[in-house]
Amino acid sequence: MEQGRFKHMTEVRVRNFEVDWQGIVHNAVYLQYFEIGRIEYLKRLGIKIDIGSVRSETQVVLVRNDILYKSPARFDELLNVFSRISYIKNTSFAFEGYLEERGSGRLVAENTAIHVWLHHRTGEPVTVPDSFRKAVLQFEGGDVGFLGPTLLT
Amino acid sequence: MEQGRFKHMTEVRVRNFEVDWQGIVHNAVYLQYFEIGRIEYLKRLGIKIDIGSVRSETQVVLVRNDILYKSPARFDELLNVFSRISYIKNTSFAFEGYLEERGSGRLVAENTAIHVWLHHRTGEPVTVPDSFRKAVLQFEGGDVGFLGPTLLT
Amino acid sequence: MEQGRFKHMTEVRVRNFEVDWQGIVHNAVYLQYFEIGRIEYLKRLGIKIDIGSVRSETQVVLVRNDILYKSPARFDELLNVFSRISYIKNTSFAFEGYLEERGSGRLVAENTAIHVWLHHRTGEPVTVPDSFRKAVLQFEGGDVGFLGPTLLT
Amino acid sequence: MEQGRFKHMTEVRVRNFEVDWQGIVHNAVYLQYFEIGRIEYLKRLGIKIDIGSVRSETQVVLVRNDILYKSPARFDELLNVFSRISYIKNTSFAFEGYLEERGSGRLVAENTAIHVWLHHRTGEPVTVPDSFRKAVLQFEGGDVGFLGPTLLT
Repeated sequence: MEQGRFKHMTEVRVRNFEVDWQGIVHNAVYLQYFEIGRIEYLKRLGIKIDIGSVRSETQVVLVRNDILYKSPARFDELLNVFSRISYIKNTSFAFEGYLEERGSGRLVAENTAIHVWLHHRTGEPVTVPDSFRKAVLQFEGGDVGFLGPTLLT
Repeated sequence: MEQGRFKHMTEVRVRNFEVDWQGIVHNAVYLQYFEIGRIEYLKRLGIKIDIGSVRSETQVVLVRNDILYKSPARFDELLNVFSRISYIKNTSFAFEGYLEERGSGRLVAENTAIHVWLHHRTGEPVTVPDSFRKAVLQFEGGDVGFLGPTLLT
Repeated sequence: MEQGRFKHMTEVRVRNFEVDWQGIVHNAVYLQYFEIGRIEYLKRLGIKIDIGSVRSETQVVLVRNDILYKSPARFDELLNVFSRISYIKNTSFAFEGYLEERGSGRLVAENTAIHVWLHHRTGEPVTVPDSFRKAVLQFEGGDVGFLGPTLLT
Repeated sequence: MEQGRFKHMTEVRVRNFEVDWQGIVHNAVYLQYFEIGRIEYLKRLGIKIDIGSVRSETQVVLVRNDILYKSPARFDELLNVFSRISYIKNTSFAFEGYLEERGSGRLVAENTAIHVWLHHRTGEPVTVPDSFRKAVLQFEGGDVGFLGPTLLT
């Protein structure tokens, strides 16, 4: 991933209980960091989240999480969490996450999280709403893939 | 993934604090379940783990975690965690995980976790030890890929 | 606490991600263990819990958690979690928890968790229902304090 | 506790995965918040922590954690975590924590965490070092109890 394509950033500081016996952040905790990034991204775009998950009001489910571990994060490090929506297809979209140490710019991990839009009652996939497409396009300035080949297929 | 190819199983019961506001298991917790499976797998093969991570004595690092969410797990459900090593290459190997609800057999999630073997001091990739290959082959009965195309490339 | 007064026991195995950099279970994780004990206790008594918390159907809130750390638990240890309700007062009751290593009987931690019964809508304290008192008395065989001085005052 | 006696404050924002099915922060997570406060307190006093625990270089163990839940915290709330050392005795000392919502000042929870100083090798209690007493006294401006009756006895 190219760090330069990300327009949204938030930060996290590594907490002591996130670190395992080796003094490095446990592998599942990085998913929490990337989710913090996605939530701040959606808040920034004005998409209301009632309670803490993209799945809330937006009726979206996470169907795939792919994470590449590049270098371990350690206690008390300050990390930049970059988030972007890389593509929106008919009923799905992908979030990319890029995690680096602040200052050094050392790459820590990369994430692709694929979501599917579901009908509130039937649970069937539905078309991603135009309001969501517009908000993302406006924020990303057009750097969003549509219908083309995805990063993971 | 074919559930029938897995020879190792352990179980987890969903705990209340693993469930989010929707009453479903949080997306990062599934990585914990799959890791529990891998640790029990290694214990079963007689590979000693000092403190709780495959990275301990075996000098192995996790470089990629890919998870497919199929259906949410809920509070107090009893889950079967199946684990297998699907391939061993020169310096790396892959664990596959298959998570289902006990009884119904409902598929919950699938995981591929790729590990690389590192030199204890230099941190450079080294050849996977023969003792590890033998233990895995003996347990898996030959159903392990070698050098061929992997699931993820 | 006297271990002999506890009539309910469940077990937990220490997982690798519950262990901190020193190889011992993190101080907040013991609260999870004691809560697992309380939930199994309530299930045993036939008190239905919808989703994973004693606060669910029973309209009960936890108001105090007091934990004494006696000796650290370590990776892969099998622990016995003992639970009992030590007293029921007008609108509150106390759970006691006793955590030991299976086999050695080494005491790991003790917990007192005080709960208050609330009105579903107003949020005001209400009298603990008779059905709850009866179920507890029947299980504990009368070894439950009433209105007398509590352990913590 | 009197909020006005606390001279150290840090902040935490409630993350979505810290919230349970009711939309309120899980009871064990508050211990993490208070520990974040203690670590920032020790950093502020120039006490080096290698890896994320007060137990690290300072050879200190947590022996009791007492928490009073006053009102639940919810997703995305910004909380002030106040920390102080309320007393230092011969071989032990107590941290107090006071958690409130920023802005409203609504009290969320209170914590007393008692620590004992141990000999690095023998594990026996030893006198709290003068350097620690001095650093605390200097920061707290004398508002630290010595040998007198504690909050919990």
